[in-house]
Amino acid sequence: MTSYLIGLIGSGIGPSLSPALHEREAVRLGIPYVYRLIEAADAAEVGELVRATRRFGFDGLNITHPCKRAVLPHLDELSADAATLGAVNTVVFDGERAVGHNTDWTGFAESFARDLPGAPTRRVTQLGAGGAGAAVAHALLTLGAGELTVVDAEPGRARALAGELAARFGAGRAHPAAPDDLPDLLPDADGLVHATPTGMAGHPGLPLPAALLRPDLWVADIVYRPLETELLRRARALGCRTLDGGGMVVFQAAHAFHLFTGRKPDAERMLAHLTELVTA
Amino acid sequence: MTSYLIGLIGSGIGPSLSPALHEREAVRLGIPYVYRLIEAADAAEVGELVRATRRFGFDGLNITHPCKRAVLPHLDELSADAATLGAVNTVVFDGERAVGHNTDWTGFAESFARDLPGAPTRRVTQLGAGGAGAAVAHALLTLGAGELTVVDAEPGRARALAGELAARFGAGRAHPAAPDDLPDLLPDADGLVHATPTGMAGHPGLPLPAALLRPDLWVADIVYRPLETELLRRARALGCRTLDGGGMVVFQAAHAFHLFTGRKPDAERMLAHLTELVTA
Repeated sequence: MTSYLIGLIGSGIGPSLSPALHEREAVRLGIPYVYRLIEAADAAEVGELVRATRRFGFDGLNITHPCKRAVLPHLDELSADAATLGAVNTVVFDGERAVGHNTDWTGFAESFARDLPGAPTRRVTQLGAGGAGAAVAHALLTLGAGELTVVDAEPGRARALAGELAARFGAGRAHPAAPDDLPDLLPDADGLVHATPTGMAGHPGLPLPAALLRPDLWVADIVYRPLETELLRRARALGCRTLDGGGMVVFQAAHAFHLFTGRKPDAERMLAHLTELVTA
Repeated sequence: MTSYLIGLIGSGIGPSLSPALHEREAVRLGIPYVYRLIEAADAAEVGELVRATRRFGFDGLNITHPCKRAVLPHLDELSADAATLGAVNTVVFDGERAVGHNTDWTGFAESFARDLPGAPTRRVTQLGAGGAGAAVAHALLTLGAGELTVVDAEPGRARALAGELAARFGAGRAHPAAPDDLPDLLPDADGLVHATPTGMAGHPGLPLPAALLRPDLWVADIVYRPLETELLRRARALGCRTLDGGGMVVFQAAHAFHLFTGRKPDAERMLAHLTELVTA
């Protein structure tokens, strides 16, 4: 019977739920599977860690902040979408080759399609143009969003991401904006996606004025600790359709698990487990 | 649920059966458990490998040739018997501490007690004074053998091991000898233990003249590939009581598994698995 050894490389990853999510699902499927955390001092270390983990018998890796871009030159091959995004969160050691994938965007895409079916996406406003924001924006435009406005407190980040997206999906499908523009943008938007840390346990609060929410706006948050952020609580109170961050976490993990093992995990079971873990 | 990541450090370990033995037993017990081979270029590398495996989330190690002595200075603590033997085949990472154990001698001891119960051990002749020979000799004298004669083609090795054993168990309980002495030694011996590579697939043949065997001599071999060596085949044909090398391998693995996990594996099931593996 084949056994699997998987690692997560990143900084500050001690609280990661990935070991529990992956290992419990593997137990349910009867697959010998161990998932270990490998703390990187900084992004420059990732190449050495990729080589060492391969030597020590790892079969694959997840990669997180701050290594998702830095890992690229240390891989032998990239999936088309990882190359397009310039970011890798999953590495499969396939014989002598290290192959990079990106299941962050597919994770969000599956979560969105599952939990907000039929949601209108003619115009979408997204808060946050960091790494997670880039994956989420790619998913929304791939799913067919007409026009995405990317809002970030750092104007250069918003411009850079919007520029990449426009080059990839067509001029006019992505625009940059600043937080001050939100009162003009939201009345015209079908949905709001939140991709900044605001609302996490360490960053409580709302990422925008509550007065900008309205019942026919759908609201998606990628924060998953807690699953119900202040933003989602307010949106639900108004009657908005909402999507919490649990689905993205679970589906990115499920897609990575599938790449590592060739076995399709039970994502519903993993979602129930995540809920248990974050509410424990 | 706790998961376990174990490595084997040594040279030329590609054909090792340990991954299969450990992992299959863990599956049977429902324990997430992965066992990986870590090839060492030479014994000098073992310290670096112990540090690296700990960093990469290993919970324990088996150590084999040529690293069983070289690993000692890199450990924080030794079991009393590992310290006495000056050889470690099992390392448990216990929080910040790396603790060395020796399950080679306990593995042989359990195998001997299980399969040759009541065998007389007033006088025993042992062929081979290498690392395995040292573990086996320690087991025999611990189990109460009266007098052990250690025969090796290298006189210095025989003298060194016999000297250590006499210092440990008492003057007169261990003596060195040369292969030429066997015709004088064996007529007086209750049993013969074979601890050299002769009889392995790559070293076929008999380690001593067949004419020295006789029906009331018990014969133990530590070679386990094949389980029936030429020596055991001849001994059985004469009607000798015999012990093959499978038990030592399985019990050393079972004892290590117990140290790693705190769970007692089913050694009978592991023996059946070993037989399957070596006859496949």
